[in-house]
Amino acid sequence: MSGERPCRGEFELIADLFAPLSRNAPGALGLIDDAALLDISPGCQLVATTDTLIAGVHFRHDDLPDLVARKALRVNLSDLAAKGARPIGFLQALSLNPSIDDAYLQRYAAGLAADVDRFGAALLGGDTTSGPGPLSITITAFGEVENGKALLRSTARRGDVVCVTGTIGDAALGLACLDAALNLPAPLAEDLSSRYRLPEPRLTTGRALLNLASACLDISDGLVGDLGHLCKASGLAATIERDSIPLSPAARAAIAQDSRWWESIFGGGDDYELVFATAPGRVSELKKLSADLNVALTPIGVLSGPEAGTGVTVRSGGHPIDIARPGYRHR
Amino acid sequence: MSGERPCRGEFELIADLFAPLSRNAPGALGLIDDAALLDISPGCQLVATTDTLIAGVHFRHDDLPDLVARKALRVNLSDLAAKGARPIGFLQALSLNPSIDDAYLQRYAAGLAADVDRFGAALLGGDTTSGPGPLSITITAFGEVENGKALLRSTARRGDVVCVTGTIGDAALGLACLDAALNLPAPLAEDLSSRYRLPEPRLTTGRALLNLASACLDISDGLVGDLGHLCKASGLAATIERDSIPLSPAARAAIAQDSRWWESIFGGGDDYELVFATAPGRVSELKKLSADLNVALTPIGVLSGPEAGTGVTVRSGGHPIDIARPGYRHR
Repeated sequence: MSGERPCRGEFELIADLFAPLSRNAPGALGLIDDAALLDISPGCQLVATTDTLIAGVHFRHDDLPDLVARKALRVNLSDLAAKGARPIGFLQALSLNPSIDDAYLQRYAAGLAADVDRFGAALLGGDTTSGPGPLSITITAFGEVENGKALLRSTARRGDVVCVTGTIGDAALGLACLDAALNLPAPLAEDLSSRYRLPEPRLTTGRALLNLASACLDISDGLVGDLGHLCKASGLAATIERDSIPLSPAARAAIAQDSRWWESIFGGGDDYELVFATAPGRVSELKKLSADLNVALTPIGVLSGPEAGTGVTVRSGGHPIDIARPGYRHR
Repeated sequence: MSGERPCRGEFELIADLFAPLSRNAPGALGLIDDAALLDISPGCQLVATTDTLIAGVHFRHDDLPDLVARKALRVNLSDLAAKGARPIGFLQALSLNPSIDDAYLQRYAAGLAADVDRFGAALLGGDTTSGPGPLSITITAFGEVENGKALLRSTARRGDVVCVTGTIGDAALGLACLDAALNLPAPLAEDLSSRYRLPEPRLTTGRALLNLASACLDISDGLVGDLGHLCKASGLAATIERDSIPLSPAARAAIAQDSRWWESIFGGGDDYELVFATAPGRVSELKKLSADLNVALTPIGVLSGPEAGTGVTVRSGGHPIDIARPGYRHR
């Protein structure tokens, strides 16, 4: 991997823990070379994305190492999902520090191995460094998508319906449970915190949306913020109905306790659901697709033309409501 | 870039400083999307590599920001060079901290812009995060190479001649000058320290070696260590002649001062020259190629084995000599 040797035992680490994760990928060159080689299918484009997760910033120091590894991979796979891409593999740049011991790395690698198998995305190479900072994981994921078919943020059309996959806000509420800011019965709290710890990249749904969505992205910063990115890129405004936003039973319980938790629904990140636009005439196709995929696909609003600006308005009971917390910090 | 928003002003930063670096790459999607799209030329494979540089570990805290940016890109381009690949573009995962101010980032981006133009490798996307650790830069570089033609580490043959590009050891000696461990006249010290600060990826030479070298890698950890990687991957042993190793005038001056600086020639990293193997019958072609490229291409030894193991022996005056310091720390 890349020729750096900043930490003692890097080569042994790679050979023991990480080389097995590349065994189905000849282009990984056994993780002993400078770079990986990838074949892209004829008629396809490469899709590439990178995301960094830093301990204490993007995940909790006490999160289990196997879940940390899986989350680091999955947030990248979620970006591929948002493009409608099929995953191929990934590079991993791992920055360690002296507090990360072999036991941690073994559990980390075991978690990564589980998701390599599950998503069919091999480890293709990377770099392992060591420094004084917190554990930091940068994964660069590769996928492929048919030429010219990738879902973009910028191609929504006026009049399109705004839809989301799954349920919204669970991860932020789960973090609130872990931080003891929100108290719910244990099974509900567990449902929410598992959404925070282990997101589910919507890869199959993203592929299915290739011919149905006009624009798409994944919700990492929060519904309103990310929909705002779609609006800005497409030059359109969005109006969404608060009471159409799909919520889990646990999220409903949180809101029943205190309506201020709506702010976590609007602005809480880490859901890794998809928000997408589709033509009104195609909304009827969503129901069948939802049943086929066993994934909720819910219309929550509409896009209007550039004269209305490029903002996001949330309505409830026929009136716009204030959004107090549009941004989001992952921890 | 990727939907993360951990630092205030990330979007402004990207729009102001980094989006201009993507202007010649439609697949960068203006750096406002989740992922980049890349077209690979027909008949070619993608080559992908990633390297992390951490302040205080891989570069000095007082290195100039423009040079830091260029080095971060160039060490990755060097990995592409070692594969014989043509660069296409790169993703940048930048982990900032509160001590990195706008002035630093402006100079950083200006340096990166200079090398984007110089090497024709556009910024295609990335992720910007902020944490408590030192500045950390992970670049993932993409190139392409004709199917099945990439130079590997594992394909050297018994009897092949070992060659290197350029001069060896300069970067490590340059670091010694910067650290005041080595005192040389200012012009010589400057020659050496510039090799440390701004390596020259051997992209043109790598392309030219596609049909000439049997195996290749770049020297990031040190000549003996990296040649050892080639040996291990190819299952061969290397014997190199100390007095054949090409040295710069400044390196000769260092050795004239104290012969212990040989250790920096053998084991000093950050040179980013190429070490490659070629069939003995093709050594005569190197001279012409060297003249065409204006790059020194110097035979320094031979590969034998596998009965001789997979180690590297350095000889001088007909006898093997001890190598006291095979490893290398970048700082």
